[in-house]
Amino acid sequence: MENQRLIFVTNDDGYASKGLAAAVEVARAFGRVVVVAPETAQSGMSQAITMYNPLYLRCVSQEPGVEVYAFSGTPVDCVKMAFDYLLREQRVDLVISGINHGSNSAVNVLYSGTMGAAIEGSFYGCPAVGLSLDDHAPDADFEAAVRFGRQIVGQVLDGQVELPLCLNVNVPAGRPEELHGIKLCRQNRGFWREEFYRHEDPRGREYFWLTGEFVNSEPSAEDTDEWALAHGWVSVVPVQVDMTDYGQLKKLESFFRR
Amino acid sequence: MENQRLIFVTNDDGYASKGLAAAVEVARAFGRVVVVAPETAQSGMSQAITMYNPLYLRCVSQEPGVEVYAFSGTPVDCVKMAFDYLLREQRVDLVISGINHGSNSAVNVLYSGTMGAAIEGSFYGCPAVGLSLDDHAPDADFEAAVRFGRQIVGQVLDGQVELPLCLNVNVPAGRPEELHGIKLCRQNRGFWREEFYRHEDPRGREYFWLTGEFVNSEPSAEDTDEWALAHGWVSVVPVQVDMTDYGQLKKLESFFRR
Repeated sequence: MENQRLIFVTNDDGYASKGLAAAVEVARAFGRVVVVAPETAQSGMSQAITMYNPLYLRCVSQEPGVEVYAFSGTPVDCVKMAFDYLLREQRVDLVISGINHGSNSAVNVLYSGTMGAAIEGSFYGCPAVGLSLDDHAPDADFEAAVRFGRQIVGQVLDGQVELPLCLNVNVPAGRPEELHGIKLCRQNRGFWREEFYRHEDPRGREYFWLTGEFVNSEPSAEDTDEWALAHGWVSVVPVQVDMTDYGQLKKLESFFRR
Repeated sequence: MENQRLIFVTNDDGYASKGLAAAVEVARAFGRVVVVAPETAQSGMSQAITMYNPLYLRCVSQEPGVEVYAFSGTPVDCVKMAFDYLLREQRVDLVISGINHGSNSAVNVLYSGTMGAAIEGSFYGCPAVGLSLDDHAPDADFEAAVRFGRQIVGQVLDGQVELPLCLNVNVPAGRPEELHGIKLCRQNRGFWREEFYRHEDPRGREYFWLTGEFVNSEPSAEDTDEWALAHGWVSVVPVQVDMTDYGQLKKLESFFRR
């Protein structure tokens, strides 16, 4: 068992979510599994870290091959807790973040706690895979996400991949046999516009609640993750963290010299 | 006054911070100023949005030319509140986020609430400038940041810039006359390693607190923001949001077909 692989699993919906159980199901096919996941739901937490509060770690369960910890921070805090403390002396072979309840295609990669954790995981010298299912329903069917997740993780572990490697994988709702397969894509351009839901609380104070709509800037571009997802493909976007706008860098070259 | 410019200001240190007052000082040189900033400190909040809580808006002050609102959400929530509700009928000419207490160079752009808000602002059809001062001291001297911030904002407003444009501006600590000037840069490569501070709370429960150290992967690359900042330059990195790893996209082309 000494050479057994170690797969680290986290998510943003919290340690008790159905999607986390599905991610563990993916992971345990490949080796020993350690989970550090948030105590509470952390959707939309992006790459956030907790700076002003102490954080608490709790062992939820220890079964043969699967240890589960809950951590009171963000998804990225969970990754840091795992790599910089709990598993510091161990070699981690791969990170799985998810399986998220809801897709993280297009610009959602910026807001997603699932992808925040996957990106953070890719900073630690192993591949990272963020898995999301395009279905928010409490009784969402994770079977297709598990099956394709397992295929992708297996190929990444067994194939010759260069690091850093971080994959944003999104699986359409539906049964596995209804899907066309895996499609390598780029991130779709677009943004969210919010319609604030307004109401009065029981004390008569007005409150606001975010409800948004995604504006797709390129609905007919067939090489994007949004298109793939809408057309029955499992989208895979490799993600990197250099946010430099090299086009603007060139255009602005002489700008600040004037 | 009808053609007066409108500058929207936000930050991640909260509406009452010294850095916000400095950002207003930058902004008011160019027109009418509306501030929507977080009620509480939101450092490290990245591009996070609030999904599970109602949010409250409060008018803090209304003086000629400067209106200040506090919003109970994240920096990105503040931007959405401004553009999608409060200023929905108005044309905003530019977004300033900051001035942050502490630099947001290199990979910090991913974790920074200041830059999360600036990026979000750039989705609304106007230029956005994130301003950060490389000084965490409570009595930090913002004069250089104000002076260079004003120069950069002025040039962006008056120059011919293409949209989207989002600038990550970092100013070294020190007096304005000690700085060399403005340097256009790319984002430095690197990552954070955490040393968890561990202690027992008054009830005997162990807690963890993040304390990290930045690992610079390219300390001698002179075209990066880290280098500029360390050598007395005001660094300016144009930022974009397509996180697709095009290098990996090419390498993985045939990978998932096997």
